[in-house]
Amino acid sequence: MTTSICFPPIRFTTEWHFGRNLLNGGILKELCKKFGGRPLLIADAALKDTWGNKLAAELECKVFYIHGGEQAKSAKTKERVENFLFKEKCGRDTILIALGGGTITDSVGYIASTFLRGVQLILVPTTLLAIVDASIGGKNGINTKYGKNLIGTLYPPQAVVADLDTLNTLPEHEIRYGMAEIIKIGLAVNPSILKYLNDPKNFDLLVKCAAEEKISIVEKDPHTHGKRNLLNFGHTVAHALERVSKYSLAHGTAVAIGCMTESHLSMQLGYLIRESFEQILSLENHLGRLMLPTPYSRSAVLKAMLTDKKSNGCDSYFVCIDGIGHPVEFDGRFCRAVSVKEVTSSLVWMEKMYG
Amino acid sequence: MTTSICFPPIRFTTEWHFGRNLLNGGILKELCKKFGGRPLLIADAALKDTWGNKLAAELECKVFYIHGGEQAKSAKTKERVENFLFKEKCGRDTILIALGGGTITDSVGYIASTFLRGVQLILVPTTLLAIVDASIGGKNGINTKYGKNLIGTLYPPQAVVADLDTLNTLPEHEIRYGMAEIIKIGLAVNPSILKYLNDPKNFDLLVKCAAEEKISIVEKDPHTHGKRNLLNFGHTVAHALERVSKYSLAHGTAVAIGCMTESHLSMQLGYLIRESFEQILSLENHLGRLMLPTPYSRSAVLKAMLTDKKSNGCDSYFVCIDGIGHPVEFDGRFCRAVSVKEVTSSLVWMEKMYG
Repeated sequence: MTTSICFPPIRFTTEWHFGRNLLNGGILKELCKKFGGRPLLIADAALKDTWGNKLAAELECKVFYIHGGEQAKSAKTKERVENFLFKEKCGRDTILIALGGGTITDSVGYIASTFLRGVQLILVPTTLLAIVDASIGGKNGINTKYGKNLIGTLYPPQAVVADLDTLNTLPEHEIRYGMAEIIKIGLAVNPSILKYLNDPKNFDLLVKCAAEEKISIVEKDPHTHGKRNLLNFGHTVAHALERVSKYSLAHGTAVAIGCMTESHLSMQLGYLIRESFEQILSLENHLGRLMLPTPYSRSAVLKAMLTDKKSNGCDSYFVCIDGIGHPVEFDGRFCRAVSVKEVTSSLVWMEKMYG
Repeated sequence: MTTSICFPPIRFTTEWHFGRNLLNGGILKELCKKFGGRPLLIADAALKDTWGNKLAAELECKVFYIHGGEQAKSAKTKERVENFLFKEKCGRDTILIALGGGTITDSVGYIASTFLRGVQLILVPTTLLAIVDASIGGKNGINTKYGKNLIGTLYPPQAVVADLDTLNTLPEHEIRYGMAEIIKIGLAVNPSILKYLNDPKNFDLLVKCAAEEKISIVEKDPHTHGKRNLLNFGHTVAHALERVSKYSLAHGTAVAIGCMTESHLSMQLGYLIRESFEQILSLENHLGRLMLPTPYSRSAVLKAMLTDKKSNGCDSYFVCIDGIGHPVEFDGRFCRAVSVKEVTSSLVWMEKMYG
């Protein structure tokens, strides 16, 4: 006897709040009231004095500090946070609020999705990278020794509060890390945002447009069957570099090098003309000094690419572009398998440029 | 600026196959072909010689054996299985097949839901308890020192293959554990299935009807906002007992004691008449000898109830019945808060009966 169990469709909606003076304006308290539930703040320890303690006091809730960086994305940190939540007798009415960069929002997102099989979640990204990338789209995850983001879920938060005021105290290099993801969106999705790059007055507009591009893609393809793959531009190389560096290389730097190297690959594969590639290279001045991790090993990078989530274990998969902001479509998909030999020539270029 | 990101609704469908001679008839190979992907078997080590090696050979796939029982539902086992999958270079095309009792299907279900953010999953329950309960409804999870199933997801499998032939070698006490869940469904959902209890010829029909009752409830209320709560009848007490016993008490025994104790509570609270309660008690002869775990501590049981997933930390929540198969509805919900004092008198009864 065979029958089908149909689970009714689930609709996820994320409120996205963008601007300045949001946190100081009491937005979190309003949101918790609206969603209903008991807030609990999980924040980057580095934000204790600037935002963490203040917001916890305003929300009259407990706060648990964890250290940002890739160490936040580990099974061990997950268990530490969970134990704190259990000790605080958190129930299903808990609203977890993640305050920090992408490593914090990724980790807390995963924790929220599995705690008591899922509790409410608000993300408060406080780095440019997290605002334009990590906090949008519901993907979360932790790293294993086999690679980045290999364990996780797709769990859209109830709300994202992207307050650009949190960037005021952000170190300059952190701004450049975010710029790498913004430039990635310009290169693989929509070139028009790149025009805002040159005038600092347009900073808020640049960030907003980049984030909205990602939102628009994610809405149409939440499960990465199609266009959402474009957001992986630069990331096959980036994830491999991060892994080879044992995550000492910043994600933003890895993405910046990845975008340049995968643009080179698009040229090598015959999609991108040299002139466009050189235009892309000129964007590097927004990205700071790019340096490969040391020690560096090409074979280790190639091996790491083959255990990427997108790999089948034989080929690596890459998003390719045939112009700035023009991805190549392959039978409705936006990435293609590339052989080790073809990748190698672009890695050689990368080593010469950034080694 | 505020906007809403809408994730399109997700529809989950689980194929449910029920009967005999399914596994020997090659059903898994057919399903893997239909779903598309590379199977990998995670099986209870106790099934190695009966089913595990045979099915792996038929599917031409790797098999990883784990020990059944609550130890399978731990963060440590999850990591061991994940490491095996990474070593085997499992990609997103993996179909994880869980072969075993409820602890195996719960654990592998959770693993499948977070591996590379979700891979395909087929459950092959091989105990009566797993066939009528654990494998239906998409809930999975692992235990922590704070309680059972506290970490997990809702992740319906692509298919469930419930082959009653796997029960042929099941020890008698395992059959009784499953009977506890079947009787629970009779008591809290539909009394008509209880009529099949007395004739062994009706065994397959009894199992099928009990499973179908659960399927029907889960379809209407996958997120446990309403009627799915009924399936927790007996489970507030059961989970607390299991925890106090450090999971040495079998779930089936705990549920059996829980059903009797919570029936007593329904009587204490004035919902159930004594005559019905005594009828319920007479069902005990299908459940074998019921014994509380030793050492037993009432205060520990009460404390454990307050950290149940359903608790808010102050009261315990119970499903109540006002007749056999007649749950009490409280403003559209099917459970109510009960004070420590009220619970205590039923615990005293339980101690006298099963201590």
